[in-house]
Amino acid sequence: MNHRLVLFIIGWILKFESAFLLLPAITGIFYQEYSESLVYVGIAGLCLILGCICTFFGKKNTRLYPREGFIAVSLGWIVMSLFGALPFMLTGEIPGFTDALFETISGFTTTGASILSDVEALSYTSLFWRSFTHWIGGMGVFVFIMAILPMMGGTTMNLMKAESPGPSVGKLVPKVKDTAKILYLIYIFITVLEVIILLICKLPLFESLTMTFGSVGTGGFGIKNSSCADYSATIQNVITIFMILSGINYSAYFCILCKQFKEAFSIEEVKVYLLIIFSAVALISFNTFSIYGSAEETIRHAFFQVGSIITTTGYATTDFNTWPMLSKTILVMLMFIGACAGSTGGGIKVSRITILFKTIRKELHILMHPRLVKKIKVDDHAVPHEVIRSTNVFIAVYFIMFFISLLLISVDNRDFTTSFTAVAATLNNIGPGLDGVGPTANFSGFSIFSKFVLMFNMLAGRLELFPMLMLFHPACWKKY
Amino acid sequence: MNHRLVLFIIGWILKFESAFLLLPAITGIFYQEYSESLVYVGIAGLCLILGCICTFFGKKNTRLYPREGFIAVSLGWIVMSLFGALPFMLTGEIPGFTDALFETISGFTTTGASILSDVEALSYTSLFWRSFTHWIGGMGVFVFIMAILPMMGGTTMNLMKAESPGPSVGKLVPKVKDTAKILYLIYIFITVLEVIILLICKLPLFESLTMTFGSVGTGGFGIKNSSCADYSATIQNVITIFMILSGINYSAYFCILCKQFKEAFSIEEVKVYLLIIFSAVALISFNTFSIYGSAEETIRHAFFQVGSIITTTGYATTDFNTWPMLSKTILVMLMFIGACAGSTGGGIKVSRITILFKTIRKELHILMHPRLVKKIKVDDHAVPHEVIRSTNVFIAVYFIMFFISLLLISVDNRDFTTSFTAVAATLNNIGPGLDGVGPTANFSGFSIFSKFVLMFNMLAGRLELFPMLMLFHPACWKKY
Repeated sequence: MNHRLVLFIIGWILKFESAFLLLPAITGIFYQEYSESLVYVGIAGLCLILGCICTFFGKKNTRLYPREGFIAVSLGWIVMSLFGALPFMLTGEIPGFTDALFETISGFTTTGASILSDVEALSYTSLFWRSFTHWIGGMGVFVFIMAILPMMGGTTMNLMKAESPGPSVGKLVPKVKDTAKILYLIYIFITVLEVIILLICKLPLFESLTMTFGSVGTGGFGIKNSSCADYSATIQNVITIFMILSGINYSAYFCILCKQFKEAFSIEEVKVYLLIIFSAVALISFNTFSIYGSAEETIRHAFFQVGSIITTTGYATTDFNTWPMLSKTILVMLMFIGACAGSTGGGIKVSRITILFKTIRKELHILMHPRLVKKIKVDDHAVPHEVIRSTNVFIAVYFIMFFISLLLISVDNRDFTTSFTAVAATLNNIGPGLDGVGPTANFSGFSIFSKFVLMFNMLAGRLELFPMLMLFHPACWKKY
Repeated sequence: MNHRLVLFIIGWILKFESAFLLLPAITGIFYQEYSESLVYVGIAGLCLILGCICTFFGKKNTRLYPREGFIAVSLGWIVMSLFGALPFMLTGEIPGFTDALFETISGFTTTGASILSDVEALSYTSLFWRSFTHWIGGMGVFVFIMAILPMMGGTTMNLMKAESPGPSVGKLVPKVKDTAKILYLIYIFITVLEVIILLICKLPLFESLTMTFGSVGTGGFGIKNSSCADYSATIQNVITIFMILSGINYSAYFCILCKQFKEAFSIEEVKVYLLIIFSAVALISFNTFSIYGSAEETIRHAFFQVGSIITTTGYATTDFNTWPMLSKTILVMLMFIGACAGSTGGGIKVSRITILFKTIRKELHILMHPRLVKKIKVDDHAVPHEVIRSTNVFIAVYFIMFFISLLLISVDNRDFTTSFTAVAATLNNIGPGLDGVGPTANFSGFSIFSKFVLMFNMLAGRLELFPMLMLFHPACWKKY
């Protein structure tokens, strides 16, 4: 591995993190939380210095091979989380190292799983940082860097591949840099739009911002202990819509941007995604009607929870742990399905599920007509063999990782539902699970060992498994 | 579809079932249960008459295409179960149709999941039939027919493919008929051996026979309410060994039969299978030592339960539902792994898991060295692309079926652990799960709808998913 190149990339991550940390610092000044603000400024300075040292000793202008791409992305995310956790520790708001790191990784990976039982006790500064990590992690810090810096010539695709969700990374335009720019512009546009609408709904600016970071980044950290339960019906519906919008493949928005409306509304993945949402809402509404009584309330809660879980956000307006088992099982299934590829959401992704179902249909055909040659098509294009193979391997790795994690955290001796949904909620970057990690509970009850397993899951889930897996591959660390 | 060919095959199934039903009838006479015996004789007669009608109107001597193979096998198993359930209903021992069918399908598919709370209340006649269904289903009724009848020329491979477990059906010898014969000879040899050893251990003949049917067929129906808990340590150990032996790929025994000892002991799947067993036993012994106190007892229970679950038998010597979560999670994982391909056990199969891990390793290599060409090898042979693809598709279908079943039975509103392990225990043909379907509980609490879902799972699990799936494929029913 080209260590100096990876060092160079990590240096830039730190520099950018330094800039990001100034935002909560400013928030702190605004709310007169000067000591907290100072901590953030200090760590921003530290990141800047270390970042400069790394880029100075690191090496630019060399070819970025896939292995460096993977290692740089996974190490970059780990380093970013380590420094992102410092403010929580140094302000004394989350004093333990494990807990602070857990919260930060949960933030950056847009999971939203918290170890805090009283969120409202945090300072505005830290609440802002906590939610802002979702926004940074949602579209990805590497995509951000690529959008701004002309870093490594034409080989940055390997970084984008490693960080972006989905079975195949579609470059929207020929240049990676331009693709990254367009993605961030759409991202910023949606963010600004949600903030404005929430402000119109009379939500204060601070809450509008933080709730937007959590929904557009599909994160799920709220700033209230009740998550979104205390907001008005209108605000809840606005958040629902923006969560669902954030789970859509961004190439749909790009098509709209290019005025290719027909293409935008005919993307198969998006249609399947919306179909799943509406079916789930219908079933859950039918199943939970007796709890809420009014149709409006039932459908609102159903839509919110379904949108929150399928997009892997993790906000809640109601304690879905008290729902009947059918509704809970639907939510668990949605956890695994996840959002669209090329969105900010996590999970297995709708496109992979679509490809899987088509592969199965093809297999049934082959079993009946062994000499048949049939291509799998999505959006009228034949899916390359490589994509099908990597989709299958992804699913295999996914379930193996799932079960190994489940085994590891079962050492804590918590009940099966809690352990199972804790792994599902972290590997899919959702946040809450059921029972012991349900929407009214939190992850503080796990042992340090289990917390590290779940942190690994969160990173693996956000980076689509392979970059984190590469860290364990000795060949990746060989020098050449 | 060639309906008359399928009718012909089903006719033979009924004729063979008629012969099988005479064995419990004889048992009934021996125990002076004349009325029960008469019922079995009557149904045997009915099966014979219907079987003769079917073969008379059916059509022999036509080519058996893959689709007929699948449909014949799945329909054959359903018909066999329907008639196999009649004695339970007509003797009044399991009066309800759903329950009787559940118990019979559970028997034939070697699942061992019961709806009975008091097994000991059954007559000897029915107890014998209940256990004997395991033995019939273990190696498969089609394999049995093929071993005896020269039925459809050279195309019977399609029947064997549809009924035999594992990613690729290895013909031991060039002729299907001879392969089937060898398989049954080995099967009968192991059966006789276990009966003799159990008799030497002073277990009465009836119990020796029924317990052997359950272990060699990897079924799990016991004849006592306590399953195997009341047997002596020696008997428990004998059963453990025979369960584990029955989970081994029968080609290993064939190698021994041909005096190819080196080949027999170098089959990779078998080595992995034994490695998993010993690792699981070590972990569970360590984890449950505090419960039992003595090392002998701890290891004995660990070995028994591990052997019982990985081979998908389902016998129990202790209530593993009271074990710590780590041990329970290990058992749940073993449920999914299952036994070796080409054995009588169920589950995903060790060979598929091995191929999966190798596929993942290959994928990691490809990600790092995109131009690398690497073949996946098992036992020093390159695994054909088709086998890898069908393994991946199998896993995908498996998990999709799993989650759809989980969703369907969650309508019953039972807790997550019960629903989850009920599906795992039926789809993998194990028997007991955890909590509400733990070793001391039974499946009677499910609704009729859920019972049918679980019955489908048992059949799908035993026939390796696709034959049962084909029943839903309209093209399969088209006449030509």
